Amino acid sequence: MGRPFTFINSAMSADGKISTKERKQVRISGDVDFDRMDELRATSDAIMVGIGTVLADDPSLTVKSKSRRSARKDNGSDEGPIRIVIDSKARTPLDADIFIKGEGKRIIAVSGSAPEDRVKMLQQKALVITVGDEQVDLVALLKELYSMGVKRLMVEGGATLNWAMLSNGLVDEIYSFVGNLLIGGTCAPTLVDGSGFHEDDILKLDLMSMEKMDEGVLLKWAVLNRY
Amino acid sequence: MGRPFTFINSAMSADGKISTKERKQVRISGDVDFDRMDELRATSDAIMVGIGTVLADDPSLTVKSKSRRSARKDNGSDEGPIRIVIDSKARTPLDADIFIKGEGKRIIAVSGSAPEDRVKMLQQKALVITVGDEQVDLVALLKELYSMGVKRLMVEGGATLNWAMLSNGLVDEIYSFVGNLLIGGTCAPTLVDGSGFHEDDILKLDLMSMEKMDEGVLLKWAVLNRY
Ligand SMILES: NC(=O)c1ccc[n+]([C@@H]2O[C@H](COP(=O)([O-])OP(=O)(O)OC[C@H]3O[C@@H](n4cnc5c(N)ncnc54)[C@H](OP(=O)(O)O)[C@@H]3O)[C@@H](O)[C@H]2O)c1
Ligand SMILES: NC(=O)c1ccc[n+]([C@@H]2O[C@H](COP(=O)([O-])OP(=O)(O)OC[C@H]3O[C@@H](n4cnc5c(N)ncnc54)[C@H](OP(=O)(O)O)[C@@H]3O)[C@@H](O)[C@H]2O)c1
Repeated sequence: MGRPFTFINSAMSADGKISTKERKQVRISGDVDFDRMDELRATSDAIMVGIGTVLADDPSLTVKSKSRRSARKDNGSDEGPIRIVIDSKARTPLDADIFIKGEGKRIIAVSGSAPEDRVKMLQQKALVITVGDEQVDLVALLKELYSMGVKRLMVEGGATLNWAMLSNGLVDEIYSFVGNLLIGGTCAPTLVDGSGFHEDDILKLDLMSMEKMDEGVLLKWAVLNRY
Repeated sequence: MGRPFTFINSAMSADGKISTKERKQVRISGDVDFDRMDELRATSDAIMVGIGTVLADDPSLTVKSKSRRSARKDNGSDEGPIRIVIDSKARTPLDADIFIKGEGKRIIAVSGSAPEDRVKMLQQKALVITVGDEQVDLVALLKELYSMGVKRLMVEGGATLNWAMLSNGLVDEIYSFVGNLLIGGTCAPTLVDGSGFHEDDILKLDLMSMEKMDEGVLLKWAVLNRY
């Protein structure tokens, strides 16, 4: 009845933005941070993103280092972790890079509201898990992932999925790289968007570490969940 | 023809928010950071905020430490720096705390679009400077302040004023305390709101220092202005 150890890894500008208001991806971190992210991917059982991120950035979510891929294979694993998209309406494009690039399992988590024909098409490309009526039920999904052997889950955004995971008490740690740039914008995506906390239920963190990295700072926070 | 050395001092959550989406003030930093802010106030010639902050938080912007106030007076200055509100339409309430609390000069910067009767009322309480047609012309204002002897200007937000100052190339440094909490919210005020930069004109920073403070981190950035 457990859930995976779950962490969010993200890069944000000095004003908390993770992309421009047009949802254009921006290079926020540098090579050292990229390599750190690659190591996190290589040592996770699964990586999760929201459909917004797939549609905006079309990330492949593969492990970039050849030696890390080989090391995983030598351990009897796939070369990369399971790649999971949170996608209530089964909108993931069939030619998304997560399908084209790299090897290993893909999971599309959809809800009961997903059109049947879209689900059938995605089933050619991935394991489709249906949880929740209108939107993906993340609590139920994490239980299911855990029972499938996912003990260590990396969440790579975006802003809305981060909110949903955090507000459901499903995140243990946050690693945020703060880059040396300002993006600005009243509603540009930030590290945590969604409906937001009220002043009485603000989520507290505990600073685990801070470290200068590339031209910015890597902050590691533990999430002090209420339950 | 110069302008003051200008810095923004702000406290934000780990996701870049400076208040909740309802614009409710939240305690983000702790006593050490408060004292640091007080020292910054005491050593500045003027403190500036936007009308949004006055209406939301009604800050007094006074120097809290008695010894710092005395030290200023011993130097022949007022006990606190000039308090400036950026307020195109002269909406600053006559019973705002900046008028009631503390001693020293107040400036309300308005634009040509401010109702005459409001300007007259504010003139009873403060020096009213009119610059700009629709909104306050910040470039012209900073020149004027400089010629009045303001060499060191502290900007205390909020999100929209920070954007306006930064996008006009008027800010030299940013001191941002990153607190151990998450606020979330798609459009909750962040360190820098406004219209936001496009991917090609993103503003670059240079990390001057990082320091653990209270339960969070103080980051000091130099702004790499293009002009
Ligand atoms: N800098 C970084 O580290 C980084 C990392 C990743 C992304 N990004 C940026 O983040 C932006 C995308 O973020 P985003 O907020 O638009 O999208 P997102 O968080 O990637 O995906 C959000 C979507 O997930 C779906 N979803 C399904 N079940 C959900 C549930 N229970 N709760 C919440 N959402 C659920 C919703 O769409 P449906 O209802 O249709 O399912 C929702 O719109 C892009 O601009 C991207 O560049 C930056
Ligand atoms: N945590 C912190 O450190 C901190 C510090 C300060 C504030 N805050 C929070 O920030 C929020 C307020 O921020 P805000 O963005 O709503 O308001 P703001 O930045 O304080 O004020 C913005 C207003 O300034 C006026 N303005 C005049 N000339 C301007 C110009 N040239 N460019 C831009 N604006 C100009 C505009 O109103 P007019 O057109 O009517 O003049 C504008 O709406 C509050 O929630 C407050 O709690 C937090």
